[in-house]
Amino acid sequence: VPRSVDVADLVERAQAGQPRAVARLISLVEDASPQLRKVAEALAPHTGRAQVVGLTGPPGVGKSTSTSALVSAYRRQGKRVGVLAVDPSSPFSGGALLGDRVRMQEHATDDQVFIRSMATRGHLGGLAWATPQALRVLDAAGCDVVLIETVGVGQSEIEVVSLADTTIVLLAPGMGDGIQAAKAGILEVADVFVVNKADRDGADATERDLKYMISLGRRERTDVLWRPPIVKTVASKGQGLDEVVEAAESHRSWMVDHGELERRRQRRAEAEIEAISVERLRTQLGDVRGGEALDRLAKRVVAGQLDPYTAADELIEDLHAGA
Amino acid sequence: VPRSVDVADLVERAQAGQPRAVARLISLVEDASPQLRKVAEALAPHTGRAQVVGLTGPPGVGKSTSTSALVSAYRRQGKRVGVLAVDPSSPFSGGALLGDRVRMQEHATDDQVFIRSMATRGHLGGLAWATPQALRVLDAAGCDVVLIETVGVGQSEIEVVSLADTTIVLLAPGMGDGIQAAKAGILEVADVFVVNKADRDGADATERDLKYMISLGRRERTDVLWRPPIVKTVASKGQGLDEVVEAAESHRSWMVDHGELERRRQRRAEAEIEAISVERLRTQLGDVRGGEALDRLAKRVVAGQLDPYTAADELIEDLHAGA
Repeated sequence: VPRSVDVADLVERAQAGQPRAVARLISLVEDASPQLRKVAEALAPHTGRAQVVGLTGPPGVGKSTSTSALVSAYRRQGKRVGVLAVDPSSPFSGGALLGDRVRMQEHATDDQVFIRSMATRGHLGGLAWATPQALRVLDAAGCDVVLIETVGVGQSEIEVVSLADTTIVLLAPGMGDGIQAAKAGILEVADVFVVNKADRDGADATERDLKYMISLGRRERTDVLWRPPIVKTVASKGQGLDEVVEAAESHRSWMVDHGELERRRQRRAEAEIEAISVERLRTQLGDVRGGEALDRLAKRVVAGQLDPYTAADELIEDLHAGA
Repeated sequence: VPRSVDVADLVERAQAGQPRAVARLISLVEDASPQLRKVAEALAPHTGRAQVVGLTGPPGVGKSTSTSALVSAYRRQGKRVGVLAVDPSSPFSGGALLGDRVRMQEHATDDQVFIRSMATRGHLGGLAWATPQALRVLDAAGCDVVLIETVGVGQSEIEVVSLADTTIVLLAPGMGDGIQAAKAGILEVADVFVVNKADRDGADATERDLKYMISLGRRERTDVLWRPPIVKTVASKGQGLDEVVEAAESHRSWMVDHGELERRRQRRAEAEIEAISVERLRTQLGDVRGGEALDRLAKRVVAGQLDPYTAADELIEDLHAGA
């Protein structure tokens, strides 16, 4: 990255919806480039408008197909759509593996659709940190909706999905995936349920199981007034997606009316500031006394002369003192 | 947990190999109890002796069966064995789901075998933080070998496996799992490869693929002198496990001769101190100005008045100033 990159110009062109400027800005935030600070500052005033919708669910439920069909549904409403496809288990970012064009071929030539694959690049904390920034770029680029699609259903997927205003959990008939999803804690984060592949046997049973699980969940959480609707789709045939959009809109209206949107965005900003601070502090820890403090403390722990908690105390004390 | 727990007494009884004392100590470190510091201090002088062996691999290769058979192999040598079964995707800890007794029934009555299930308890950082402490307990309890078995093959599994002196990666014929494992970066962490279910068709092909992938990896890493051996097993019939033990022993000898064991343990201690420090700093961040600093900064970020990086700067400055 040349140092001469004109961030203000890039942001202006991204706001005008130029795909190359959007892609460039996402790369800048993802790579934590020296321009990152400038980019974040320039983006801040232009953010907060996009509706952020998360999509998650067990492998095999048709998440990619559903995301693509959902993009079409939003496009029918004339909305500009951003997509962040997040794969915490993949070391590949950008358009490399299962490239953006392959995933979403039908939207490849649509200049009102921005698609980006995000991956960990070998560092788990990296995603939690880069994804909200990429979201911010798409927001500033005038996207009415940003879809965040995750590949799996682990803890890290839940963390990523927690960036969304509205979280859609996808299931499909006959996979026993309701139980899997329950184990992963994914039912608790759902604002809208989608039973995809609803033309298959067992769709009604899946819906029934879901209703039962929702009723169980509600018993424990009487403070929650929103009852997640269940929408049936056949994403491969484009069926039911308008209803998914409607359900997401209803949820958004409900959130606005109940102050929940503000609360979620506040929590999201707190998590974001915290994640950035923790990354920075992690770097500072490694740099205490020119990097020698951690090295020396670790030697004493290996030798059994010191426990790691006392070592951490000493390191933090040194950190604050040197700052 | 009553405050009156006698940590010194617990550690003494754990050193004598009393299973209940071992279980109690692991619970104390896992729950981050107020006694955690005392426990860590009391354990420190008694640690560093156990050989730590990690087992990982894609689902379906027979990890649980292999772990159990490997325990038997070490028991035939008269060694005391600890097992930490780590599942980053499960919210259940202790002996709850797939309880310890079910997993390892044949060792349930052996007083020289300590088995413990570890899970995230809904907090991803928790495992990285609790697992080394549990390992320390088993080490102090006189385990000659501690096996760390992980369930999946994601980034978090790799982080957990990095606690090991020697990492065993399991594969099985005909699953295309070599490619999966390569994608997850798991081949790079392997010190020993095991092709389990070697009585099935395709075992030779899997071995051939592995050899090819190892040769590719070596081309890029000429500094690495250890060539991971490939051992074939049929864990369900107890076949080949003595050879796995031998391979792990060879790797250990090689590490000792080349100073690699010391380097790994140093890196491990550094990572441990860092993880504890980061957790503590995360708490401190939330407490800056009685918890109001983060709240106020987040409000300004939501309003687009501030970017999250500048917010993080202000928060960290406040943190150091208040410490």
